[in-house]
Amino acid sequence: MSDQAIVAQAWDLLEKSIIYYRDRPVGTIAACDPDSAALNYDQCFIRDFISAGLLFLIKGRDDIVRNFLEETLKLQPKTGQLDCSKPSRGLMPASFKIVSVAGREYLKADFGDHAIGRVAPADACLWWVILLRAYVVSTQDMALAHREDFQEGMRVILELCLVTRFDMYPMVLVPDAASMIDRRMGLYGHPLDIQSLFYAALRISLKLLIPNQKNEYIIQAVHNRLGPLLRQLRENYWLDPDRLNIIYRYQVEEYGEEALNQFNIYSDSIPFYRLAKWLPPAGGYLAGNLGPSQLDCRFFAIGNLMAIISSLADEQQSHKILNLIELRWNNLIGDMPMKLCFPALEDADWRIVTGADPKNRPWSYHNGGSWPVLLWMLTAAARKMQRTELAHHAIAIAERRLIQDQWPEYYDGPDGRLIGKEARRYQTWTASGYLLAKELIANPDHLKLVIDDD
Amino acid sequence: MSDQAIVAQAWDLLEKSIIYYRDRPVGTIAACDPDSAALNYDQCFIRDFISAGLLFLIKGRDDIVRNFLEETLKLQPKTGQLDCSKPSRGLMPASFKIVSVAGREYLKADFGDHAIGRVAPADACLWWVILLRAYVVSTQDMALAHREDFQEGMRVILELCLVTRFDMYPMVLVPDAASMIDRRMGLYGHPLDIQSLFYAALRISLKLLIPNQKNEYIIQAVHNRLGPLLRQLRENYWLDPDRLNIIYRYQVEEYGEEALNQFNIYSDSIPFYRLAKWLPPAGGYLAGNLGPSQLDCRFFAIGNLMAIISSLADEQQSHKILNLIELRWNNLIGDMPMKLCFPALEDADWRIVTGADPKNRPWSYHNGGSWPVLLWMLTAAARKMQRTELAHHAIAIAERRLIQDQWPEYYDGPDGRLIGKEARRYQTWTASGYLLAKELIANPDHLKLVIDDD
Repeated sequence: MSDQAIVAQAWDLLEKSIIYYRDRPVGTIAACDPDSAALNYDQCFIRDFISAGLLFLIKGRDDIVRNFLEETLKLQPKTGQLDCSKPSRGLMPASFKIVSVAGREYLKADFGDHAIGRVAPADACLWWVILLRAYVVSTQDMALAHREDFQEGMRVILELCLVTRFDMYPMVLVPDAASMIDRRMGLYGHPLDIQSLFYAALRISLKLLIPNQKNEYIIQAVHNRLGPLLRQLRENYWLDPDRLNIIYRYQVEEYGEEALNQFNIYSDSIPFYRLAKWLPPAGGYLAGNLGPSQLDCRFFAIGNLMAIISSLADEQQSHKILNLIELRWNNLIGDMPMKLCFPALEDADWRIVTGADPKNRPWSYHNGGSWPVLLWMLTAAARKMQRTELAHHAIAIAERRLIQDQWPEYYDGPDGRLIGKEARRYQTWTASGYLLAKELIANPDHLKLVIDDD
Repeated sequence: MSDQAIVAQAWDLLEKSIIYYRDRPVGTIAACDPDSAALNYDQCFIRDFISAGLLFLIKGRDDIVRNFLEETLKLQPKTGQLDCSKPSRGLMPASFKIVSVAGREYLKADFGDHAIGRVAPADACLWWVILLRAYVVSTQDMALAHREDFQEGMRVILELCLVTRFDMYPMVLVPDAASMIDRRMGLYGHPLDIQSLFYAALRISLKLLIPNQKNEYIIQAVHNRLGPLLRQLRENYWLDPDRLNIIYRYQVEEYGEEALNQFNIYSDSIPFYRLAKWLPPAGGYLAGNLGPSQLDCRFFAIGNLMAIISSLADEQQSHKILNLIELRWNNLIGDMPMKLCFPALEDADWRIVTGADPKNRPWSYHNGGSWPVLLWMLTAAARKMQRTELAHHAIAIAERRLIQDQWPEYYDGPDGRLIGKEARRYQTWTASGYLLAKELIANPDHLKLVIDDD
């Protein structure tokens, strides 16, 4: 089938997913699979909408994005309160849906309270900031971002993330399962996926916040945080063969501020022999998580790709991440781009770290499954680093399967050959991720929506 | 050796541990082992001082406790700031030491920044509130607690703990290793040991905070939190044979607010067969941790004993916890009271959950080691529930070893027969915990220092 036909079908799917609130388009539902119960797939997820939103901006359909930003902003709690049954000030919901009460429509937000596991999303508010910037860049409508309600929305997001808590790291502290990986997967503490989005949102906020008296303290706080956060992520999360050797030879149990092994990582907790073999000399990546005696050496795609896109990774690191993807193509791309994380947790690791979650069996769903939506991030990262052939190749692989398989949510198996065990078909962000990748390839000017290299 | 001789030696050890700041006694150093390098054992740890402080109050030496409370209060950051390199407002340090600069003494606090792993303590500020109440009860000096600096200190502690974050549970969210167990041990999220102290501190604050305009919102917030916190802990942390059977038959993957299996726990993650055999029909306890797809079924002593002491556990639950200790005496008490947690993490669990921490090898240190300091909590809990024989028995066991072994910090081995591999000798809280247990046995009136049954 020609790629025009694939694109046409993807657009058809995306159009059908648009939901209207009081007759205005405000978002997209997660999936339109006629064969599956809706469960919560009839909702508009903030994180799912991002690729669709960027695409709508590219196509000049700014109204949907503007409506989405305005309506979700209204769902965000603005007042500080100490009531644990209510979402924190600054939090954005994971999703919302339209409900009718006495003939009138309302938006009902889910902050994780309806979801399995009941964890509030930490990523939604960060993605919201990223989409707001894209809207401003695309439309030149800085007035929206400068509106007091938007300034306040950003302020409370930043406060939520910047407030120091029971640790003294520059990273933001989150509970397990607080992002796209919304099931227990060892992502408590300081998971990379969240830190990459956090860094991007901090940088953006400096561009969008008006330097007035109300914002002064928060702008200062962002400035104070960016340096230590960048250093921590570039230095202590980074893994390449040289760095691996340093960690391998770490001293342990060092007291005091001058300790080299700051997090007291024990060599025996790191799969050195597997990693020493797997990591190509030209490759490297940011580790999945860092905490006391914890360095999670799994590769997470969102964290690493967004690190390239946001310039959290420096130029050499960005190339090394792409080198790794290129040189370990079978592992990270295989038959469907691309793995959300690699490798899968198996056996005792799976049982202990996921709590024996059958949906996250090894090489399924979040645990080593392949997610077509990641195609757009891979394309943006590759395009930014002038490695477009990587993106072309990945898109071509996806095109062999997506229509035939009816746009599944995810794929399973070590090489992504199986349609995901519980995957919905006609998943909106599978289509929008593919379409966005195609647009970014066709016109590199669109990169400015997500890349800011000032 | 007579128990008078043991008591005399313990007092001698405790007296020698007192440190003086500008000629006033302010605390006790952690250990006085002449054969070991000091490392950070030359500091006064907040949590270590609690048993000594209670003992000093019993002996009428209120000045030390008052000085301790006043000086640590000065170390607590009072101003809100968003700078991650500084400790959060409300945090109490893990420890402090006296340094001399140009002939003048200063207190230098450690908020975890010098410690291995660099995690700030979440328990120190809660223990501080508990000791403040004991001081007030013992001296009737309510004026100290009513002083504006103490009121402010309590307010900022409560704010730090009550502010909602990236979750919507009533429990307080902490990183791993944020308590006495200050190494990675699977205690991220909502560990029981912290929640028990949190509950105790919330209850106490209602007695000590002046109901004025400044405190009104925080008193309201405490009221709002106590009910949901109590329900969550008594219901969802509780494990006994009946409850185990309910969890065993849980449905999974339930959406919506009415889900019975709120945390989506998978049966395969729970060691049902071991627990079904181990849990006596008359026994029960509060589980070690709770989160998404996570129910940590290890028994933690501080959380369970403080739950009895603070009335977090109801009367029946309190008896069931003590029944468990009585009926599983060999496991939980053995040759030295008592296990900090049971059972130890072994093999893959140890490697994955602790990050292969050699100090926390199975049945050593925090990971299934035995800590004599727990004697006082066991005694207080048993005495409160009129189960004094349990305490007598435990104290008699400890008396067989403590002098001969020179007051070690902890013991190793499944039954606690080995002096801990890296245990300091002449550990202050080993002596003070023993002495406090003796006082609580001798005169039940002293229970009022830690028990509030209004």
